[in-house]
Amino acid sequence: MSNPSPLIAAIEAGGTKFVCAVGTGPDDLRDIARIPTTTPGETLAEVDRYLSMAQSKHGPFAAIGVGSFGPVDLDKASKTYGCITTTPKPGWQSVGVVNRLQSRYQVPVAFDTDVNAAVLGESLWGAGKNTDPLVYITVGTGVGGGVLVHGQLLHGILHPEIGHLMVPAPQHSKAVHDICHCPFHKNCVEGYVSGAALAARWGVRADTFSNDHPAWQETAKVMAHALANITLTLCPRRIILGGGVMQQPHILPLIRKSLAKVLNGYFKVPEMDQSLDHFIVPPGLNGHSGILGALALGDRALKKSMLGETC
Amino acid sequence: MSNPSPLIAAIEAGGTKFVCAVGTGPDDLRDIARIPTTTPGETLAEVDRYLSMAQSKHGPFAAIGVGSFGPVDLDKASKTYGCITTTPKPGWQSVGVVNRLQSRYQVPVAFDTDVNAAVLGESLWGAGKNTDPLVYITVGTGVGGGVLVHGQLLHGILHPEIGHLMVPAPQHSKAVHDICHCPFHKNCVEGYVSGAALAARWGVRADTFSNDHPAWQETAKVMAHALANITLTLCPRRIILGGGVMQQPHILPLIRKSLAKVLNGYFKVPEMDQSLDHFIVPPGLNGHSGILGALALGDRALKKSMLGETC
Repeated sequence: MSNPSPLIAAIEAGGTKFVCAVGTGPDDLRDIARIPTTTPGETLAEVDRYLSMAQSKHGPFAAIGVGSFGPVDLDKASKTYGCITTTPKPGWQSVGVVNRLQSRYQVPVAFDTDVNAAVLGESLWGAGKNTDPLVYITVGTGVGGGVLVHGQLLHGILHPEIGHLMVPAPQHSKAVHDICHCPFHKNCVEGYVSGAALAARWGVRADTFSNDHPAWQETAKVMAHALANITLTLCPRRIILGGGVMQQPHILPLIRKSLAKVLNGYFKVPEMDQSLDHFIVPPGLNGHSGILGALALGDRALKKSMLGETC
Repeated sequence: MSNPSPLIAAIEAGGTKFVCAVGTGPDDLRDIARIPTTTPGETLAEVDRYLSMAQSKHGPFAAIGVGSFGPVDLDKASKTYGCITTTPKPGWQSVGVVNRLQSRYQVPVAFDTDVNAAVLGESLWGAGKNTDPLVYITVGTGVGGGVLVHGQLLHGILHPEIGHLMVPAPQHSKAVHDICHCPFHKNCVEGYVSGAALAARWGVRADTFSNDHPAWQETAKVMAHALANITLTLCPRRIILGGGVMQQPHILPLIRKSLAKVLNGYFKVPEMDQSLDHFIVPPGLNGHSGILGALALGDRALKKSMLGETC
């Protein structure tokens, strides 16, 4: 008989809200709480209150996993490891998350991007089981993506920043450079199709668009070019599309059709049939990809620390 | 004292020529031969003749490593594993390479793309030592790229096909969709800046362009967008640019400058300073990245087979 799974605290640190939970796995997620992201002082104090409550109610947790909005510093040799770094979100530049939790709770603290957490959660329990390389992309207020390859989350000179992939402008726009709303780039995915970009461009929120609104064809086309580029670079076996903008029921079929057109038969592999139904899929964890991924991060950090590695 | 390194046969199978060699490592590469790529029957017979000669001269080789033009089938569970598949090169579709060598020589045969071989060679002995993730891109007659991540060559639903990354059209072209020469895609790197595309567009070979020819600024811009996308997806710690078109001494500085402009300060990491001199680099193996990588592939296959794994 194996030991009972250890209790892990999980934090999905988003630009709009922090989701917190404790649990041992996907079938045991307790006391999910949503804390608005206001100032670091206020929000992190609320997280502390949550963790104290959870600890007195459920007992001590063995590790903490954090999936955070970014960019974040994931380089353990860096002085700013565990910090949110150059985010445009006011007040959140250079905010340390890991040190604070580690000194307070004295347990291993794992830290990664929110989207890397989500791809890990989906790979373990959701729409990406036994699927490697695997990509998870969220299209919400912003656009981000996480990557799992060779069983590990991908980091390198930074972490994936898929939202800023440069793509050809959607064809039927005349003033192509005027419609990208990214403050950094002239032709990037986030600048074209994030919820914020769509609202800024069309003057109303994307969830009020009718199904035949021209924004959807453009969104599909921009996403198709981004997904083509990801496919040509990473060769994922599946790409999971989450986030508010992707929840419109007609958008995934539009994106699949546009992707097939863009790739134009270049990938002749059996897994990627014409319909692309198994290649471009929605998340399998019902809105819990990120928080379950954060829990899995905590669990991995615990196992590493038990093996004597630094975590 | 360790055993002497085993003798490996290496084949770099290119669309223009096959390079063959035997050796034990970068300081011991013997009898490098170049065989023109004509018909599969003719070229592969020449390869056989080379291998027989090499064997009688240097003794038996313990493994064979092949880096091949593609697309190739790298799925060991597939019936067409070890074949060149849907290449546009006349006569070379569905040509089996691995089976032929394995049945003839009864040694482990490793098989990968020419560019994955090159990135492996550069990572072991060239410009990419201790640098992971690492990308190698060649811009010659065509454009291709290999990827090493977590110490392994990247494969998934296929292998990287970086030459077909979709990018915004170079700005100062009026008829943007008329200048991409790829038969599959409207906006891809190979269609814009391969040697063949440049020659088709401007009517003369790229190596005759003067240094101030407008093609170079366009080439730099297209490459910069491709490299930005690779950086945003894979976060490599270095990108090596090889191939004929990249040998013009002024092109790498132009590409670095354009890449810095395209990314526009988004990657604030110390390794990627403004000059990008250590991020975008030429190959370190003096034209031997591919053949030495093929040798390393053979050596890895031998080690795996000695560990009892299938190779």
